[in-house]
Amino acid sequence: MTQTAFLELLRGRWRDPARLLCVGLDPEPERLPRSVRALPLAEGVWVFCREVIEACAPYVCAFKPQIAHFAALGLESVLERLVAHVKLHHPDIAVILDAKRGDIGSTARHYAREAFERYGADAVTVNPYLGGDSLEPFFAYPGKGVFVLCRTSNPGSAELQALELAGGERLFERVARLAAGPWNANGQAGLVVGATWPQEVARVRSFAPGVPLLVPGIGAQGGDLAATVRAGWWRPEFPGLILNSSRAILYASGGEDWQQASAAAAQSLVAEVRALLADLG
Amino acid sequence: MTQTAFLELLRGRWRDPARLLCVGLDPEPERLPRSVRALPLAEGVWVFCREVIEACAPYVCAFKPQIAHFAALGLESVLERLVAHVKLHHPDIAVILDAKRGDIGSTARHYAREAFERYGADAVTVNPYLGGDSLEPFFAYPGKGVFVLCRTSNPGSAELQALELAGGERLFERVARLAAGPWNANGQAGLVVGATWPQEVARVRSFAPGVPLLVPGIGAQGGDLAATVRAGWWRPEFPGLILNSSRAILYASGGEDWQQASAAAAQSLVAEVRALLADLG
Repeated sequence: MTQTAFLELLRGRWRDPARLLCVGLDPEPERLPRSVRALPLAEGVWVFCREVIEACAPYVCAFKPQIAHFAALGLESVLERLVAHVKLHHPDIAVILDAKRGDIGSTARHYAREAFERYGADAVTVNPYLGGDSLEPFFAYPGKGVFVLCRTSNPGSAELQALELAGGERLFERVARLAAGPWNANGQAGLVVGATWPQEVARVRSFAPGVPLLVPGIGAQGGDLAATVRAGWWRPEFPGLILNSSRAILYASGGEDWQQASAAAAQSLVAEVRALLADLG
Repeated sequence: MTQTAFLELLRGRWRDPARLLCVGLDPEPERLPRSVRALPLAEGVWVFCREVIEACAPYVCAFKPQIAHFAALGLESVLERLVAHVKLHHPDIAVILDAKRGDIGSTARHYAREAFERYGADAVTVNPYLGGDSLEPFFAYPGKGVFVLCRTSNPGSAELQALELAGGERLFERVARLAAGPWNANGQAGLVVGATWPQEVARVRSFAPGVPLLVPGIGAQGGDLAATVRAGWWRPEFPGLILNSSRAILYASGGEDWQQASAAAAQSLVAEVRALLADLG
């Protein structure tokens, strides 16, 4: 099966330039609605995520399953099924596998195979600490997106990422320059920058013009939506911003109206972005 | 089941201070011996790895399955079985799950659960790029070992890891100091340093006295065994060095004498270390 290239999928969804939302699929058994918790675990996770996908599809540019949430429970087969479900029923929506992989090249080949061949994701998140050669096996898959961690959304991310290098640059700035430049021979690179640091979203954008930014931290983590959109917005025909929200969408209600609550939360985030864009003029 | 703490397992195996070998379990379908390739894939990978474990057990302080090699093929259940096999038949040998995980805390909890609860590993490898708070969920498992990537064995590892920070320290040195110091409240930390950089093994050892170093790069990657042992050796009662070899042991012959060839390669590596230690006096 030939798949549409990741950037083409984004361009398609961004014909509505306010459709920047990416819904993270991070199933937590203890947070599932009661009626779903009554099902066998694999079935419950499948039904929950599938219904969230169906509820949110009109409002998203991408879905981002986080692999640890499946792996901790031995539910790889559910993850396979979910990606296949999106590809079959919503072939215009990208799937970003959030795996944050990073290993030496001979092993990275296997991680790339896991993400792109086993799961069939359109893009994957990777960790840059091992250097550019460790990422080559991911970039070797034509048309696939490769999101390099740059400035992550967690409170302690500055501990290494914001260290000042000799010469004055900070580590995450170097990563942004490398990922947008020498590592990005075929235009497949993206960068992960937390919405919890909007000023640094702006710095990264200045080093990485036109590169898609995957921005977690909207919602439960308290990132600033308006500041993030102002800082990271590229152009109307290619906004270059993928705003991820996981928990605030998935567990919007927690009750038996979860599908409607997720859809409403997704819709309202898109409306918020639309209002911001009108303001930005 | 109460498990013996990781450091206790190491201490036990290091009653022979030359027994520094860790055999990496990195199954590659196309490199399996012909008779094993004739089996269904899951069965072949299981038989191959189990037999390597049996052949090499007398010579090792640890086994290190590399999870991508299983995940790329959908063979998580084989990995589960292999760890259980070691814990049942060789309960004195540590299993280090080589996963190089790293994510924000709420997700890292799931990765820690994957490594320690699902697979039952005694230790795991993790990536420090997200900062100390991202590693806390791993350190929260009492008695488990947490190996922080520091200076990896791949050719491009200097690209970030050897960057000079303002003040003169290099990034991997900062990681060594953090991992051996503030991140290491309960003495569970280890560090990953490639045998391809023996001088940096010595630097790391100077920042991390007594901390176990997991040293890949011996064998197929061409690391210098003698220089590594000189650089990283701590004390006779706790050598502090876990020398990993994967491909050079697993595929020592490639033919139908693979079990014997793996055992011989492992035995000869221990003998080499023993000779070196005699020289070191």
